[in-house]
Amino acid sequence: MTRATEAENPHSLVLRLPAESPLTLESGASLAPLQIAYQTYGTLNAEKSNAVLICHALTGDQHVASDNPVTGKPGWWISMVGPGKPVDTNRFFVICSNVIGGCMGSTGPASRKADDTIWGTEFPVITLADMVRAQARLIDHLGIETLLAVVGGSMGGMQVLSWASLFPSRVFSAMPIATAAKHSAQNIAFHEVGRQAVMADPEWQRGRYHAAGTKPVKGLSVARMAAHITYLSEGALQRKFGRNLQNRDAPTFSFDADFQVESYLRHQGFTFVERFDANSYLYLTRAMDYFDLAADHGGSLARAFWGTKTRFCVVSFTSDWLFPTADSRSIVKALNACGAPVSFVEIESDKGHDAFLLEEPNLFATTRGFLDAAASARGVT
Amino acid sequence: MTRATEAENPHSLVLRLPAESPLTLESGASLAPLQIAYQTYGTLNAEKSNAVLICHALTGDQHVASDNPVTGKPGWWISMVGPGKPVDTNRFFVICSNVIGGCMGSTGPASRKADDTIWGTEFPVITLADMVRAQARLIDHLGIETLLAVVGGSMGGMQVLSWASLFPSRVFSAMPIATAAKHSAQNIAFHEVGRQAVMADPEWQRGRYHAAGTKPVKGLSVARMAAHITYLSEGALQRKFGRNLQNRDAPTFSFDADFQVESYLRHQGFTFVERFDANSYLYLTRAMDYFDLAADHGGSLARAFWGTKTRFCVVSFTSDWLFPTADSRSIVKALNACGAPVSFVEIESDKGHDAFLLEEPNLFATTRGFLDAAASARGVT
Repeated sequence: MTRATEAENPHSLVLRLPAESPLTLESGASLAPLQIAYQTYGTLNAEKSNAVLICHALTGDQHVASDNPVTGKPGWWISMVGPGKPVDTNRFFVICSNVIGGCMGSTGPASRKADDTIWGTEFPVITLADMVRAQARLIDHLGIETLLAVVGGSMGGMQVLSWASLFPSRVFSAMPIATAAKHSAQNIAFHEVGRQAVMADPEWQRGRYHAAGTKPVKGLSVARMAAHITYLSEGALQRKFGRNLQNRDAPTFSFDADFQVESYLRHQGFTFVERFDANSYLYLTRAMDYFDLAADHGGSLARAFWGTKTRFCVVSFTSDWLFPTADSRSIVKALNACGAPVSFVEIESDKGHDAFLLEEPNLFATTRGFLDAAASARGVT
Repeated sequence: MTRATEAENPHSLVLRLPAESPLTLESGASLAPLQIAYQTYGTLNAEKSNAVLICHALTGDQHVASDNPVTGKPGWWISMVGPGKPVDTNRFFVICSNVIGGCMGSTGPASRKADDTIWGTEFPVITLADMVRAQARLIDHLGIETLLAVVGGSMGGMQVLSWASLFPSRVFSAMPIATAAKHSAQNIAFHEVGRQAVMADPEWQRGRYHAAGTKPVKGLSVARMAAHITYLSEGALQRKFGRNLQNRDAPTFSFDADFQVESYLRHQGFTFVERFDANSYLYLTRAMDYFDLAADHGGSLARAFWGTKTRFCVVSFTSDWLFPTADSRSIVKALNACGAPVSFVEIESDKGHDAFLLEEPNLFATTRGFLDAAASARGVT
């Protein structure tokens, strides 16, 4: 059997897994060849006991704490991860990998198949468990048996829950933030709108736009605009934009972006399509829709964590209506039923779902405290 | 000056206003020729004191209590309006007209200009006040000086507020339901997503699809899907659909409509495009975005109603997150500041914004009671 090889690319470390050891997906399909693009920060200690895995959200990537090579912007969680930050890279070895199905170097619908053509919509539909099993290959490769912590928000939080459920002995502590153990009807509905927006774009070309030399930028942009509204609270939109006009004193009586909120949304759509693959958007939203940890365990969420020794810290935000506190409470309730050590923090914020990515002192303090306690309990100095 | 003429069409009464008396719009533009399609139910009494004007919402029309000729379905408020119903057509003369900018017979972007070509996006951008001033022409034509009541929900409620503000002496009582005195940033954002979805469709043809012989059905369908989510509460979606699969026992690991909520939304989009003009959707959403009654009165909502003698009944629904109760409270507060007679009812419902269109016994009782009191106060027997 060919061994996994590690390749450098200009921007990320890339683990290439041999075609002889494909990933068996929940759908029954096999995925090969498989590569996982990732970043690390800090140093793995001799005991290999200080590794923290950060799981990214739907449109995130492995560039959690260093400049993003595509956008040129700082890492998406630069306020959380770094030297002296709540996830302190002076102390912890931080790993962040692009999920499979993504478009930043890990195998996804924009990757090439064994025959060198692009997967497109022939890429198999993947699940959260598939993403996590692929990540586990990376953790194996890094020689780490048990992660000190797995941390992530939104779709990242779904990965955290999947890690704790699939590999309980490999997760010393887990911090699911602004997430749910199952995707709600409303969230599926919003995702379906986004997918239909992409698919309605004739340049999507039934998923074969790479071959056609086109890109469904308009459809993807609409999808992003709709999604972006769900990431903010009504209060945050009111506070940031209200009914303020954009660079004008009076409405133009036209379909121009008269209002700042319109201009902002158009900008969000416009910049997103520069950095994200439309098919990836379809696959990752689908994976979230399929996520239902209880259903995978005979309808009992507690059974997903039965016998767990992992320490949990569950976090939600008061104004998050995409993954409301009730979703977090369901997770806490199930963990309590298992007798798992779990703390729960609902953070007061008017920033909506996006709060987990923003400057939230209470989130930083909670994360720092939780990781510190986990490190102490595990004897990490 | 040519007099207004009334023409029958197979489905609606149509008032044609002479080209010599155009409607001056808030934008400064003039709109002519102008026609208003409407329906009436019941009989106007000799004193002309029993007329109730029903104002329809964004995608509604004049067919409030009789079969819709396009869809073949019963009127959109058949549970509310009719013989013996809360708005009792045995007692009241009920009028409902298609708003200008609409697409069911009143002048809108799908209508023909004086030169017999279709307006398309050359149609002027209209406002709620413009809609109401056009309706006032119809009420003039019917020889009614003062309406016993003006009643409507959502965009219909915005018309109710505009009527009471623009023509206080012509509105004996007013019932704005599930509405707001100004459109919020979040609501503008959702509308902008819908408009961008329409405009992203190449078949929109920059608004000239009638001439091109095309229809932006995919874009309009996506717009409707996104909007439809906002009409329902998260709880209603959970109760109606949850994560139930559509005619299958297991997910298909594909982009089919596996979930009932996906299938439902696709159906909503699909049926909507059969009955609605895409450009009308742009114009009516824009009118709602521009709606800000306080801004029209120096920033004071109370000033919009100063000195009013109209009796108000303001209604909201607990689970309506598109026009939440806080919006209604702002209206009530302003009316209280004017010393206006106002009652306020917040109805417990998990049906979201759509509640105003559905079987809500408390809404029916409130409406019946309010109209009864108004009729008594005005001496209508």
